[in-house]
Amino acid sequence: MNKRATIGDVAARAGVSKSTVSFVVNGRPGVSASSRDRVLRAAEALGWQPNARARALSRNRTQAVGLVIRRDPELLSTDPFFPQFMAGIEIGLAAQEYSLVLQVVGDVQSERSAYQRFARESRADGVFLTDLRIHDSRPQEVRELGLSAVVVAPEGTDLDGHPTIGMNDDAGVRRAVHHLHSLGHERIAHVMGTAGYVHTEARRRAWQESLEELGLPLGTLVTADFTGGAGARATHELLDLPQPPTAIVYGNDLMAIAGLSVATDRGLRVPDDLSVVGFDDIPLAPYSVPPLTTVRQNVVAWGTAAAQTLVALVEGREPPAVVLPPVEFVVRGSTGPPSTPSRARPRKSPQVRARS
Amino acid sequence: MNKRATIGDVAARAGVSKSTVSFVVNGRPGVSASSRDRVLRAAEALGWQPNARARALSRNRTQAVGLVIRRDPELLSTDPFFPQFMAGIEIGLAAQEYSLVLQVVGDVQSERSAYQRFARESRADGVFLTDLRIHDSRPQEVRELGLSAVVVAPEGTDLDGHPTIGMNDDAGVRRAVHHLHSLGHERIAHVMGTAGYVHTEARRRAWQESLEELGLPLGTLVTADFTGGAGARATHELLDLPQPPTAIVYGNDLMAIAGLSVATDRGLRVPDDLSVVGFDDIPLAPYSVPPLTTVRQNVVAWGTAAAQTLVALVEGREPPAVVLPPVEFVVRGSTGPPSTPSRARPRKSPQVRARS
Repeated sequence: MNKRATIGDVAARAGVSKSTVSFVVNGRPGVSASSRDRVLRAAEALGWQPNARARALSRNRTQAVGLVIRRDPELLSTDPFFPQFMAGIEIGLAAQEYSLVLQVVGDVQSERSAYQRFARESRADGVFLTDLRIHDSRPQEVRELGLSAVVVAPEGTDLDGHPTIGMNDDAGVRRAVHHLHSLGHERIAHVMGTAGYVHTEARRRAWQESLEELGLPLGTLVTADFTGGAGARATHELLDLPQPPTAIVYGNDLMAIAGLSVATDRGLRVPDDLSVVGFDDIPLAPYSVPPLTTVRQNVVAWGTAAAQTLVALVEGREPPAVVLPPVEFVVRGSTGPPSTPSRARPRKSPQVRARS
Repeated sequence: MNKRATIGDVAARAGVSKSTVSFVVNGRPGVSASSRDRVLRAAEALGWQPNARARALSRNRTQAVGLVIRRDPELLSTDPFFPQFMAGIEIGLAAQEYSLVLQVVGDVQSERSAYQRFARESRADGVFLTDLRIHDSRPQEVRELGLSAVVVAPEGTDLDGHPTIGMNDDAGVRRAVHHLHSLGHERIAHVMGTAGYVHTEARRRAWQESLEELGLPLGTLVTADFTGGAGARATHELLDLPQPPTAIVYGNDLMAIAGLSVATDRGLRVPDDLSVVGFDDIPLAPYSVPPLTTVRQNVVAWGTAAAQTLVALVEGREPPAVVLPPVEFVVRGSTGPPSTPSRARPRKSPQVRARS
């Protein structure tokens, strides 16, 4: 390892004080043009670069933004959200010379400690708040800690004055229900993800309101938790009903693909006997059998917009105008007309029974 | 936002100089017991905590470790490795008060710049090197940059003296081939991931050597890139052969599940007409149709061990002894005896042709 040049070496070579070097590096006024010139030439000759920590201390900024993820390992490794969101953040930070500091935590207490550490130990200037919960205390907590924040939440939500990015979950689910209705479905169920999250609730409400708008009967709701196991159990529960649904809208692709597997195991044909819609468009969605109809959002774009907004906030600049790509509804083979359209299906009356 | 106490406030309250406060905080000798006592009481009364950046500067450590991920978005969001590895790192760092600084990059040049920035701007004391490539220059580069490093690579690899963690890919693939052989398969193909990675090559070599050990004919090898699309194309290519394989071992689950989908589309029954083995045991693996036989590794444990080892290195301590959980081979429904065992299958001789 080569010994790195220090600010002292640069000052000595330039024949100025260390403070002068520091002033030049931080672009402060009060340094003569010739001194500035000597400092820059000395720094170049010695291959010296100002230390980020030292620069951060002098500016009172860390040049880093933080993301705390509270997820259990299964969901962390199947949810396409975080890797895509992080890739997007990096695109947004790349030009700005900010780093992303990451913490994965298991519970609310560790989550709170992580934000406190970011603030008290000056490890991050601002944070991204994701997986927003109903009555979430984090927007207020991080404000009290003095951290800037951008919240991934439905547009227009007011969250202690923090800007929000992305998350128009409603639109995708609405399109799913309208698509199923146009195919002739009337009994459309919903398998919901983990209760308590704003996005889980938004998807559920969009399903319910769409049914009402279309004049369809209230469908059956089963609460699950976004895992494959819970998606499978919820599907069995729905298919065991005296009048099972002809279509199921799931809160994510993992539960939907588990549902496809359950339906196939029970001898049902998808989509003839059951139509299935997911949410996320994970890279495996085209390779389920049949390929999964689902909702696609551009999460990478959300991450980039969130990063640009957060850095602007931290630096006291006006955040850039954000135009996110629209939600896409991707129709594949897992949805189709019901083999016995509910409209035409004979009621279980004595007469009908007698015939069979 | 409350105004935070400064080191000056603590010094004033304790009646000592700021340097004395700094000496106490950094555990240096030469401070009287009574001064030390006054400083600690003053710090507690004011709720003052030493600034991580200031402390890091004085110790010349950043209390952070870095991970640079070079992946395209599709692979980042389907590969279970990174989220699990990161969750494991966090478990290993949690007790140590280190942060993880993350960068996602798109090409080799940005990757190199990221390590340089970690070192030159003192953003990380050490790094994790993952996705090791054949003739990878990173182990040497990070050593020249003065960064400590832990490399995710097969045990016993010598990499410029950096310790290695995990990665016994051979064992899983060997078990897959032996399992298929015991079921009666003789034509066992391999769909390889992206060429050039140490782990890709290790899986290919384990497949080939196992065939040789078992006295089986050399199987067909197709190079893909770990994506679903490439896995599907490779499967078509294999099934179009005059003598298609009766079993395929894929380099990861995503390609294997795409392969299942292709086989089903072509009217083949899995496992009767084709057995399929994946690698990773992603949470969707039990929900493919049929459920996927695959190789499971405890990547979370690797991350934890890697983090503990890296922090020890950075702090100049002896790294802890690492005992990683063994690889598991998970047999599910996608493998079974071939319907026409290759041994018994008639050769395409003129006589046989005449009969058909």
